[in-house]
Amino acid sequence: MGVVVSLEGGRNKKPSLTPLMTLVAEDLRAVNELIIRRMDSPVAMIPQLAGHVVAAGGKRLRPMLTLAAAHMCGYEGTRHIALAACVEFIHTATLLHDDVVDDSELRRGLATANAVWGNKASVLVGDFLFSRSFELMVEDGSLEILAILSRASSLIAEGEVLQLITTNDTETGETAYLDVITAKTAELFAAACRIGAVIPGRPKVEEDALETFGMNLGIAFQLIDDVLDYSAKQATLGKTVGDDFREGKITLPVVLAFRRGDEGERAFWRQTLEDLEQGPDDLKLAIELMERHDALADTVERARHYGAIARDALGIFTDSPEKAALVDLIDFCIERAH
Amino acid sequence: MGVVVSLEGGRNKKPSLTPLMTLVAEDLRAVNELIIRRMDSPVAMIPQLAGHVVAAGGKRLRPMLTLAAAHMCGYEGTRHIALAACVEFIHTATLLHDDVVDDSELRRGLATANAVWGNKASVLVGDFLFSRSFELMVEDGSLEILAILSRASSLIAEGEVLQLITTNDTETGETAYLDVITAKTAELFAAACRIGAVIPGRPKVEEDALETFGMNLGIAFQLIDDVLDYSAKQATLGKTVGDDFREGKITLPVVLAFRRGDEGERAFWRQTLEDLEQGPDDLKLAIELMERHDALADTVERARHYGAIARDALGIFTDSPEKAALVDLIDFCIERAH
Repeated sequence: MGVVVSLEGGRNKKPSLTPLMTLVAEDLRAVNELIIRRMDSPVAMIPQLAGHVVAAGGKRLRPMLTLAAAHMCGYEGTRHIALAACVEFIHTATLLHDDVVDDSELRRGLATANAVWGNKASVLVGDFLFSRSFELMVEDGSLEILAILSRASSLIAEGEVLQLITTNDTETGETAYLDVITAKTAELFAAACRIGAVIPGRPKVEEDALETFGMNLGIAFQLIDDVLDYSAKQATLGKTVGDDFREGKITLPVVLAFRRGDEGERAFWRQTLEDLEQGPDDLKLAIELMERHDALADTVERARHYGAIARDALGIFTDSPEKAALVDLIDFCIERAH
Repeated sequence: MGVVVSLEGGRNKKPSLTPLMTLVAEDLRAVNELIIRRMDSPVAMIPQLAGHVVAAGGKRLRPMLTLAAAHMCGYEGTRHIALAACVEFIHTATLLHDDVVDDSELRRGLATANAVWGNKASVLVGDFLFSRSFELMVEDGSLEILAILSRASSLIAEGEVLQLITTNDTETGETAYLDVITAKTAELFAAACRIGAVIPGRPKVEEDALETFGMNLGIAFQLIDDVLDYSAKQATLGKTVGDDFREGKITLPVVLAFRRGDEGERAFWRQTLEDLEQGPDDLKLAIELMERHDALADTVERARHYGAIARDALGIFTDSPEKAALVDLIDFCIERAH
C-alpha cells in the first residue's frame, strides 16, 4: 500500500483546498489586486482581455504555492506577493497562447479570450503579460528568482512545442508524455514552490525540497487533469469532457489504452486521434476501451506515485499549518479524480 | 534646409552601412555564433524554426546598435556580445508573432516560419526565444539592463495590440500612428542603444543620449519602411510591394493621403483598407493618390526630422569611427527610400 501513503492519516476525511485557501486568503487578495493593477495599460483592449482570462482563471493554485511555501519557510515580509503575481502572469500568458494553439473556444465553461477577441489579440496580450511578469521580477531585484522563472518559461515553451509534435502521434510512449507534462506544467509548479524558499534566503536543501515537491505535485496534477478529460466527474467541474480526444492529444490514458489494446483497438485510436476521423459515439467507445484496460485507474495510480514523492519531499520541514495544507493539496489534486 | 542636416558633410556620398558593418564585423560574428548556440534545444523543431528566422533575419541592425554604442562608449569587454544577442532574440520573437498576427507568408522574399511550420509552432518558438533572451540577460546579471529590456518588451507588445486596433481604421491620425511605431519599433532601437552606455557604466546623460538616438532612428527607420511598402524601390530589395495595403495597415503615407484627399478618395481608402475590397489596379491607384498628395515624399521628410534629432543626440560624444558610422546609419536608413 506504499503508494497511497498520501492518504494515510486522512483516510476518512475528504481532502480539501480549504485549509490552504484559508491560510493564504489575505495574501491572495493582495496578489489579485496587484495583478489587476499591473495588467493595466493605456491600450484598453489589454486589461479587458487580460481581465477576462484572469477572472476566469480558476483557483490560483500556482501563486498559492509560492505564498504557502514562503510562509512555511518562515517568511514574514511582502516580496512573496509580487512574485506570486509573476507566477500567475506567466501562467496566464501560457494559457492565452495555449488556447490559440489548441483552437479552444471554452475554458472552465467560459468563452476563451481567442474566441472573444481573436487569436491575434490573444498572442499579443500573452506577450504583454509575459513581459510584465519580467518587469515585476526585475522590480523585486533577485537575480536568483529571475533565473528560476526565466528558465521555467523556456522549459514551458519547449514543452508546448514538444506537445505540438506528439499530438496526433499514437506511437508516443509514457516517457515522452512525461517529458511533455514535466516541461509544460510541472516546471512552473516547481519554480513557484522553489522561490518560496529563495525569498527568505533559506538553505539550498530547502529550495531543492520545495522544487521536488512542486515538480511531483505538478506531474500528479496534470495526470489527473488528463484523466478528468475522459471522466464523467469532469462535467460537474464545469469543464467539457473529451477536449483532448477531439484535438487528438496523446495523454497517459491514451498511451496505456493504446499499448494494452489489440490491433483493432489500435486502428480505432489511429483513426480517431491521428486522422481525427471521429464519429458521434467514438468518445464513448474511447472511454470504454480505457476502462477495459484500467487506463484511467492506472493513470490515477501513477499520479499517487508522484504525489507520494511530493509528500516525502516536505519531510525536512517542521510541522506547520502551511505544511499540513500543502500535504492536503496533494491529496486534493489526486482525489479530484473521484 | 534645417531638416536635411543629416546629409550635410556627406551630400555627394551615398550613405552606406559598410562602415558600421566593418567596425562590428568581428563582434557580430560572435553574436551570430551565440545566437545559434543559445537557440538550441533537444526539441529539434525549435532550432529548425528559429534558425530559419534568424538566417532570414536581414542586417542585424539592432544588435549592431548595441555593439557600436558600447564601443563608442569606450567599452572593451565582452558582455555586449550576449546582450546584443538578447536584443536580436527579442526582435526575432516579435517577428515570429508578427507574422502570425499579420498572416504573412513571405518575409524578405522567403517563406515565413508560420507558412512553413504553422502558426502554432511560430507562437510557441517565439515564446521560447523570448524566454531564452531573459535567461541570457540574467546570466549577464545587470538588473538595470533587465529593466530596460523587459520594459521595451512590454511596450512592444502594447504597440502591437494598438496596431491591431488601428488596422483597418482610416480615421487613425498621425499621433496615433506615431504612438504605434514608437512602441512596436523605436522602443527596441532605443533600448538596444541605451544598453551600450549601461554596459560600461557611463553617466546617465550618455545613456539618455543613446536612447534618444535610438528612439528617433527607430521612428525614421519605420517611416521609411512604410514608404518602401508603396515604392518601386522595394522590389529591388527583395521585398514585396503592397503588403501593408493588402492587410489594411494604416501607415503615415495613408494617413496623409487620406487627410489630403477629397471625399471620393476617402471612399476609395475606406473601401480598400477598411472593407478590404481591393481590385487588381487598386494598389496602383493608391500609389498614384499618395504621389498626387506628396504623401510618400512628405513621409520621407518626417523621417528626416527624426533623423536630425537622432544625429544631434550623438553630439555629446567625442568623434570616433563608431560615432561616424552611427551617423552614416541614420542617412542610410533614410536614403533607402531613394
